[in-house]
Amino acid sequence: MTQTHDTCRSVPKVGITPEALLATHNLFRHMTDEGKAAFKARARIQRFTRGNTIFLADDPAEWGYVIQGGWVKLFREALNGAEAIIDVLPPGSLFGETAPFENGSYSYGVEVIENVELIVFPLSILKDEAARNHDFSMAMIRHISGKGLAKDKETELRAIQNASQRIGCFLLRLCKDNESGAVTLTLPWEKALIAARLGMTPETFSRSLAKLQRDLDMTIKGPVVEIGDFEALVRYTCSACSNVFPCDN
Amino acid sequence: MTQTHDTCRSVPKVGITPEALLATHNLFRHMTDEGKAAFKARARIQRFTRGNTIFLADDPAEWGYVIQGGWVKLFREALNGAEAIIDVLPPGSLFGETAPFENGSYSYGVEVIENVELIVFPLSILKDEAARNHDFSMAMIRHISGKGLAKDKETELRAIQNASQRIGCFLLRLCKDNESGAVTLTLPWEKALIAARLGMTPETFSRSLAKLQRDLDMTIKGPVVEIGDFEALVRYTCSACSNVFPCDN
Repeated sequence: MTQTHDTCRSVPKVGITPEALLATHNLFRHMTDEGKAAFKARARIQRFTRGNTIFLADDPAEWGYVIQGGWVKLFREALNGAEAIIDVLPPGSLFGETAPFENGSYSYGVEVIENVELIVFPLSILKDEAARNHDFSMAMIRHISGKGLAKDKETELRAIQNASQRIGCFLLRLCKDNESGAVTLTLPWEKALIAARLGMTPETFSRSLAKLQRDLDMTIKGPVVEIGDFEALVRYTCSACSNVFPCDN
Repeated sequence: MTQTHDTCRSVPKVGITPEALLATHNLFRHMTDEGKAAFKARARIQRFTRGNTIFLADDPAEWGYVIQGGWVKLFREALNGAEAIIDVLPPGSLFGETAPFENGSYSYGVEVIENVELIVFPLSILKDEAARNHDFSMAMIRHISGKGLAKDKETELRAIQNASQRIGCFLLRLCKDNESGAVTLTLPWEKALIAARLGMTPETFSRSLAKLQRDLDMTIKGPVVEIGDFEALVRYTCSACSNVFPCDN
């Protein structure tokens, strides 16, 4: 039976209120009442349309952001103008929040790739909180460590997976854990950006997609991907990884 | 004038005593007297020869390590047996130290690539220290953030640099910041490992080395690299990076 998803695992609309964020988020819920009050008083909702730059690498870091809806890309530019995609973030993600604990400026630029709604808050709130609240600083250690683990995973996958497996891995992350048989899903962003996020050229991406379609009973028309045999894609992709499916990374 | 180095920037023999480590290291110097006393009482020097495995990914994390001399590689194995090199660490580096703040097990395996001398200490000392000492937990945030920045830099370079530029970047990191003209240096490890660390196949590595020799007045004989024009290598490599030479990353 074919299962069709309008939305996929990685693109929830979060739309969380600042109050709910402070009550439930693994970092924010460890703030003191004083810190939470400052956050509620000063956090604002902002909207940016596709193509807008929110900040650039090396800008002084004054604001932190929580994505409520939409997507952004984190990037850096080389001296020769080439752009490296560091990450693409879905709703629910934080960005800019570690800058006060680095050198006080953002280490990447951020551009909107799908209209976003953001909770924007002064980073001084996090800095003050870490300075006075040990429980919060321990939560920050866990938060930053978790980001480091995800980056190590990325390094592993880039080293071990071939380009088709890397695309397969990207597709599996868009699926629910309990899928089976035939599955239809929609790519969340344009193919050129997916290629860049996966660290491959558009040409390699196209060739590797063609290989997936040839070898694995998949069809891809525009943004719609029909996976004929979900388990076969899992076997093909996840053999080149140290985790078993479904994974948290 | 040709400058010849017996050792290069990245391979100092540190040979620091536990006492000096506690007095000067950006993380350890923030420990309480109680924590420092526990460290001095329980830290041991251990030596491992090339090829030995110190621990494997997912082993319960009980010990932390400081490299006094020699090199290790951090790796993960895929289900199909393929190995990904996550990092290669020189003397002065710590490893295993973030595990208590992740899920309590090591997230990578560690193997000795050049006979090492290590300071080995119980991770419970770091965990206890972070639990009671706010100054130390703030130092741990900065320490882990710094590692995250280095990983973002790695993602950037893998996205932007071609294989020859990536090798050029590796060579420049072995040189002193104030080099100029003709420079001779010695590769610190075997070429297959350098290739793996840079995320490329041995074949790509060989082809790209040949390109460097052809285009940039370099000669490579065994482990000895003669750079004919240091500034030309900097121009060629660092144009594909967001930093200018010399960089800290």
